[in-house]
Amino acid sequence: MAAATLVSNGDHAAFKTPSAGRQAAVYSEVQNSRLDHPLPLPSVLKNSFKVVDGPPSSAAGNPDEIAKLFPSLFGQPSANLVPGDSTDNSLSKSLKIGVVLSGGQAPGGHNVISGIFDYLQDRCKGSTLYGFRGGPAGIMKGKYVVLTPEFIYPYRNQGGFDMICSGRDKIETPEQFKQAEDTSVKLDLDGLVVIGGDDSNTNACLLAENFRSKKLKTSVIGCPKTIDGDLKSKEVPISFGFDTACKIYAEMIGNVMIDARSTGKYYHFVRLMGRAASHITLECALQTHPNITLIGEEVAEKKQTLKNVTDYIADVICKRAELGYNYGVILIPEGLIDFIPEVQLLISELNEILAHEVVDEAGVWKKKLTPSSLQLFDLLPSAIQDQLMLERDPHGNVQVAKIETEKMLIQMVETELELRKQIAAYKGQFKGQSHFFGYEGRCGLPSNFDSTYCYALGYAAGALLNTGKSGLISSVGNLAAPVSEWTVGGTPLTSLMDVERRHGKFKPVIKKAMVELEGAPFKKFVSMREEWALKNRYLNPGPIQFVGPASDNLNHTLLLELGAQV
Amino acid sequence: MAAATLVSNGDHAAFKTPSAGRQAAVYSEVQNSRLDHPLPLPSVLKNSFKVVDGPPSSAAGNPDEIAKLFPSLFGQPSANLVPGDSTDNSLSKSLKIGVVLSGGQAPGGHNVISGIFDYLQDRCKGSTLYGFRGGPAGIMKGKYVVLTPEFIYPYRNQGGFDMICSGRDKIETPEQFKQAEDTSVKLDLDGLVVIGGDDSNTNACLLAENFRSKKLKTSVIGCPKTIDGDLKSKEVPISFGFDTACKIYAEMIGNVMIDARSTGKYYHFVRLMGRAASHITLECALQTHPNITLIGEEVAEKKQTLKNVTDYIADVICKRAELGYNYGVILIPEGLIDFIPEVQLLISELNEILAHEVVDEAGVWKKKLTPSSLQLFDLLPSAIQDQLMLERDPHGNVQVAKIETEKMLIQMVETELELRKQIAAYKGQFKGQSHFFGYEGRCGLPSNFDSTYCYALGYAAGALLNTGKSGLISSVGNLAAPVSEWTVGGTPLTSLMDVERRHGKFKPVIKKAMVELEGAPFKKFVSMREEWALKNRYLNPGPIQFVGPASDNLNHTLLLELGAQV
Repeated sequence: MAAATLVSNGDHAAFKTPSAGRQAAVYSEVQNSRLDHPLPLPSVLKNSFKVVDGPPSSAAGNPDEIAKLFPSLFGQPSANLVPGDSTDNSLSKSLKIGVVLSGGQAPGGHNVISGIFDYLQDRCKGSTLYGFRGGPAGIMKGKYVVLTPEFIYPYRNQGGFDMICSGRDKIETPEQFKQAEDTSVKLDLDGLVVIGGDDSNTNACLLAENFRSKKLKTSVIGCPKTIDGDLKSKEVPISFGFDTACKIYAEMIGNVMIDARSTGKYYHFVRLMGRAASHITLECALQTHPNITLIGEEVAEKKQTLKNVTDYIADVICKRAELGYNYGVILIPEGLIDFIPEVQLLISELNEILAHEVVDEAGVWKKKLTPSSLQLFDLLPSAIQDQLMLERDPHGNVQVAKIETEKMLIQMVETELELRKQIAAYKGQFKGQSHFFGYEGRCGLPSNFDSTYCYALGYAAGALLNTGKSGLISSVGNLAAPVSEWTVGGTPLTSLMDVERRHGKFKPVIKKAMVELEGAPFKKFVSMREEWALKNRYLNPGPIQFVGPASDNLNHTLLLELGAQV
Repeated sequence: MAAATLVSNGDHAAFKTPSAGRQAAVYSEVQNSRLDHPLPLPSVLKNSFKVVDGPPSSAAGNPDEIAKLFPSLFGQPSANLVPGDSTDNSLSKSLKIGVVLSGGQAPGGHNVISGIFDYLQDRCKGSTLYGFRGGPAGIMKGKYVVLTPEFIYPYRNQGGFDMICSGRDKIETPEQFKQAEDTSVKLDLDGLVVIGGDDSNTNACLLAENFRSKKLKTSVIGCPKTIDGDLKSKEVPISFGFDTACKIYAEMIGNVMIDARSTGKYYHFVRLMGRAASHITLECALQTHPNITLIGEEVAEKKQTLKNVTDYIADVICKRAELGYNYGVILIPEGLIDFIPEVQLLISELNEILAHEVVDEAGVWKKKLTPSSLQLFDLLPSAIQDQLMLERDPHGNVQVAKIETEKMLIQMVETELELRKQIAAYKGQFKGQSHFFGYEGRCGLPSNFDSTYCYALGYAAGALLNTGKSGLISSVGNLAAPVSEWTVGGTPLTSLMDVERRHGKFKPVIKKAMVELEGAPFKKFVSMREEWALKNRYLNPGPIQFVGPASDNLNHTLLLELGAQV
């Protein structure tokens, strides 16, 4: 009843390795229904188009250094696709294109690939699309699969990255660049599409520069992917996956809110995935109206201490208790503690000490901490102390994403409320419940928005490669308008870059887009949060719908940034 | 765009207490769309009906003791509603009815209340429905609200229990029964509907018996509520909320599966809510096809040890590693460790020791454990040892639901795999990721099935009270057929009961319906699990849809138990 075997007519005998493929996969009824969900294209992509160049570009910072790092690409104009007949007759020739998924999963990646593929099918008959397997390592090792209509079809509008899988490798050393060149030459690649976040797109630009400088014909185009929402600019209004992931988390938060109100006795502390930036947390707040939302960027801006944060939460809990509410919902961004200056200092001291010292049980090592860090360390619940000591990456650094901040805050708030009880400043009952929403959101079925947006990003990437552009990131804009009116083009990756000094050298980086405290989404949140804190304005967005009410809604962050009222 | 203020025309001035109400609530577009979702009734409830009594009933066990405990009610027949004119002219008179929500939340509770209310509006003009607030305590304290169309409307097809909230109190002592009687007399109640799980329905039956024996006119009807799915029988095919909760968990599990397959490097250990019984875990397995599913009832039946369970998981992981899969998804029922005889023994010893001994740091207290329990205790990861020592309910008993079994198993499996690595029996890389899905599922927007089923349960409860029946549980059957063909009636609560001996006395209990190892759902699972273990047959059900594909699907457990093929 709910499941049907998907029958594919393609011959995939050459691709029967364990880690990939949905051949003979069993699909649920909803998965099946998504396969043929129509994907409208912006008008400009449906007809003849030509490329109009914008003015020369610069960099997000330190343009002189960026110019030195990207001599072939720096300064190139953005590309805008507009209706019209191209003067370039080469546009209909067949191409050999590679595509790679880089970094963590985000709903919609499969549709980017579908978009590239369909562009080649529609406009460049006889083209070949190679899918590099397992991320950038697939480029270096020459591990790929030739993508066919039968191979791609089962992944249309489906979540995950399992069509060709992803990986976190980078192409960095001269040897690795050489490997990429070899693959490019061997496959005679006209172009490569790198689907990834800020780091992966920086890497894509380095690869584009390298190919250009070596006079290889391979162009490189990036696509903005990350559920975290921290890869965006004026020209790239949103990274794909953010919309779906936030809607999935907001569904869960909305459910927990109704539970909190029904039970009347729990404070739910919900930590949300999202790395350093707090976009996901802010978006979920706008979708659900929690009592308390911590935004890392604000905590940093105000130079708050852990005690400040604890007090803020305790203050709201005390006020709510006076109103008779001994329950609530609190949203916490994954990267919160990284935003607290004193915690940053503690972590950097710990990283230094643990790299060189033996941690003795008697705690002699602790004397290496500065007095303020030692005081903070001793203030932390022991489980968090353990996580700070034990959860380290291969470089020996604390893995902030693994710190259970929500449990830490529950304990610290509990302690604070006990103190207030003793002086009769709090008379309520406090019970904390911890949650972490993360993996559930990275591979869900893409929302209608992400499905359509990704398909356009991919189709546009195909068009940009077809015109020989390199070092651009696929850019689809005017997203609050109907799809037919979306704008399409490419933005120079170098224009998004600044440099960071590492080991005495300048390294190019696409600056992570953090939550702007002067931006419309944060301002909207600030205008509402006091009401949300004390009155219960919980909003339950419900599960993502693919047809019917709300199925075509955009996320609030995007709408507000585009100037719409929500 | 996504939110609209719900404007209600009702006068709710009398009901402005903090803990309740959605007056002036802000609703999401999906919440709003659900308000007017049509609720079809079984044909028999749409026209004139009469009650046909079945044969005299007995008990699930120890009928003699049940007969002694329920002298007024024991042996009464089940009631079946069939088309026809009632000979009882009293059926159209106005009634005074109370309703109470008891125990944990389950999606659909608001629709039971809507069903009762609409029955009274449709068939017994001038009736009054009192909603007792905060569970059975509301009956005892006489805390109630008069339910009106305007008051009820915003809760139609919405999740949560916040219309009148719930509570976990029981009416047990003579004083408490007296309080209930006083409320009943004061409000001149013709009937009371108790919406709850096994314990609450047992309590409902005791209340029905008490009212009868005191010659009060108040009849009592129960309704089967619990996401855990452990309150069911031949006549009561499913408890409400199970369908929605499982679909919400299955959505998350399906997403995590695609993530596992895309990343290729994590084993996700997912613990699922569901108290003692493993119905939720089994249903989620049938919906998603995980690599490993632990069913508590099977573990108990086979008298497995924690080591057996660990070895089973490690065996599958080793086999998968040989096939090149170093990832997977494992489902674990909340109550698992309670099913492992050696753990039960350890917990009971701990309960005993901790009630009387001081826990010294040196561990002298441990010598009170039997050697096998001590050995098991020392085998457990220290975090779990802490949880066993610290997470205790007010009676001093270990709170099994709070034990993070998923983290415990990750650690134990990790240790086992390390040993196997040393003897070259395992060459893979193991990384465990823990999840607990619980609160997210209890208050979601009810699925179409739960919406319709609950409305019918409530409407039927109204009809049963109208005919003067007491001590029955509202029973709606033939659920695999179209709604129009659903059967409607009431099953004697005493027929579901057995006795347990506690403190030298017989106590009536509705036996929890555990997963039947000979039942169709478990057999289906067993026939598939080896394939699911080694081949990847992941199924992603996607988010609950309210219109379009899959929106009217029933859960697999119910379908299989009704003899349907899925």
